[in-house]
Amino acid sequence: MFTREDLKSIVNKAILNISYEADADHLYEPVKYILSIGGKRLRPIMTLMSCNLFSDSIDSAIIPAVGLEVFHNFTLVHDDIMDNSSMRRGTETVHTRWNNNQAILSGDVMAFVANDCIAQAPPAIMPNVLKVYNRVAREVCIGQQLDMDFETTPYVTHQEYLRMVELKTAVLIAGSLRIGAMIGGANTTESELLSSFGLNLGLAFQVQDDILDTFGDPLIFGKKIGGDILANKKTLLLIKAFELASGATLKKLQSLVSEKDFEREEKIKAVIEIYNDLNIQAWATDLARQYTDRAYISLDSVVLNPSRKDALQTLASELVVRNK
Amino acid sequence: MFTREDLKSIVNKAILNISYEADADHLYEPVKYILSIGGKRLRPIMTLMSCNLFSDSIDSAIIPAVGLEVFHNFTLVHDDIMDNSSMRRGTETVHTRWNNNQAILSGDVMAFVANDCIAQAPPAIMPNVLKVYNRVAREVCIGQQLDMDFETTPYVTHQEYLRMVELKTAVLIAGSLRIGAMIGGANTTESELLSSFGLNLGLAFQVQDDILDTFGDPLIFGKKIGGDILANKKTLLLIKAFELASGATLKKLQSLVSEKDFEREEKIKAVIEIYNDLNIQAWATDLARQYTDRAYISLDSVVLNPSRKDALQTLASELVVRNK
Repeated sequence: MFTREDLKSIVNKAILNISYEADADHLYEPVKYILSIGGKRLRPIMTLMSCNLFSDSIDSAIIPAVGLEVFHNFTLVHDDIMDNSSMRRGTETVHTRWNNNQAILSGDVMAFVANDCIAQAPPAIMPNVLKVYNRVAREVCIGQQLDMDFETTPYVTHQEYLRMVELKTAVLIAGSLRIGAMIGGANTTESELLSSFGLNLGLAFQVQDDILDTFGDPLIFGKKIGGDILANKKTLLLIKAFELASGATLKKLQSLVSEKDFEREEKIKAVIEIYNDLNIQAWATDLARQYTDRAYISLDSVVLNPSRKDALQTLASELVVRNK
Repeated sequence: MFTREDLKSIVNKAILNISYEADADHLYEPVKYILSIGGKRLRPIMTLMSCNLFSDSIDSAIIPAVGLEVFHNFTLVHDDIMDNSSMRRGTETVHTRWNNNQAILSGDVMAFVANDCIAQAPPAIMPNVLKVYNRVAREVCIGQQLDMDFETTPYVTHQEYLRMVELKTAVLIAGSLRIGAMIGGANTTESELLSSFGLNLGLAFQVQDDILDTFGDPLIFGKKIGGDILANKKTLLLIKAFELASGATLKKLQSLVSEKDFEREEKIKAVIEIYNDLNIQAWATDLARQYTDRAYISLDSVVLNPSRKDALQTLASELVVRNK
């Protein structure tokens, strides 16, 4: 069995080996840049771990796994333009370092580089892998659309928010695990279970991420808490608070969100007070736990020697049971 | 054999039948819009004609042909952002009607809609069709990159310009014909000939387009001539003129291109005068003829009853021997 570190190193080597047409440096420099500035390589590592569950050799999953990482980075390059984000992974985003047009075009070509990688799945299952990949890619676009739409939607329900998270984030994790399983020789039921594991893991992760931004220990979390509150970000916590609040509490929440002049620490404190009155943290923690439980039930249902699942289980537990 | 009109109607019907996920109208409205505002459907028609050369049934080529049209329109949506173009086919471009972010995202999803269509090529040849498609898609991005780079390059050679045209425009026409031939059952040599036909046709078309913008009959051409000259567009004519001009002529050309204050008609007249002195029109017309000849040699080399080639030949002759 391969460890997470083994797999990260395999993925990073394979990323360096992606072949690009000669004489097209201007197009591919931003591609190499975004692929070189780190990131945890979670998706391709999950693909390879999932493959490794069913097969001792993971060779034929490496290029498709890299394809999923290239796709993920393609979405980051374009999302950063749309979100007007100037920093990513502690360094400049592509459109900041170059410009919007370059980021659009270099992003575009990444979609086809990813295609080329996916097309290198073993021939017998390539059409099915491609089908999964295409569906996931389209769903990720739908998720980003919902995320954009929410910015101008006055009230979003927590169900709508979770649907957005599912499409924007969780389906790609699900797809990465499913594709790994398929290449490893899993049957349909097993691939389905790995996909369900990934989908619930992705949801649990995002819910926890929302919780930590407000309730995390800043020393462990690694950044100041309250960023989402200050940005009036429509997180699960804020959305749920609006659903539950009424009377004076609702009025206060509305004024806190719409107020332009506020003292930062006071605003964070006031919103957290409302969250506490409404028991938001407990509700969200319970929701994250439900998703985590569902994820583990899916993984447990895969009939394999439990020791084969160790790597994937450890990775998952780092993602969803965490203080940071 | 199918006529061009038959095929256009088949393509348009198939475009209307593309299936999109429900509840994602915001994402797909711009997609449906750009696919509905017309266009000659040249690429999918060529795919189907090329298929029809080798096979009486073209059914299995229809969806992949639509995929090529969707891909083409995806490039238009993104190119229009990059070029800051507000009009296309007599109506608003996607980013003008919506906004840049919407055009980026709806464009992105078209790449995966196109993928889905390509993946529906007959299973036995789908991997090869996909390989051709991916290569073409990457080359089109490289072509657009060169086109963008040229804007800030002081001197572009005519060879570099033609390479840009080849990548940005001709390879997709070549690929459309090659994929049609492959699905129709052509062997490798035949597919190669159709591709070569398309590549040279695409080059001839673009060279002629550059000529017509300056030397076309405005009554037949349908728009005022000299637009490229007024925009200082680096067309084949201007590039070649810079290569050939020297002394006073070169100085005059440089001042005409860099001058900001000019009387429009006078500038057009002065540049055309230089073109005439340098015999640019004759040179470019000869070049277009060379490409056209090469295109026809390729098509002629396909061993088939000549009558089977009528539709494709007629379409080609409308594209490259034209006064408008």
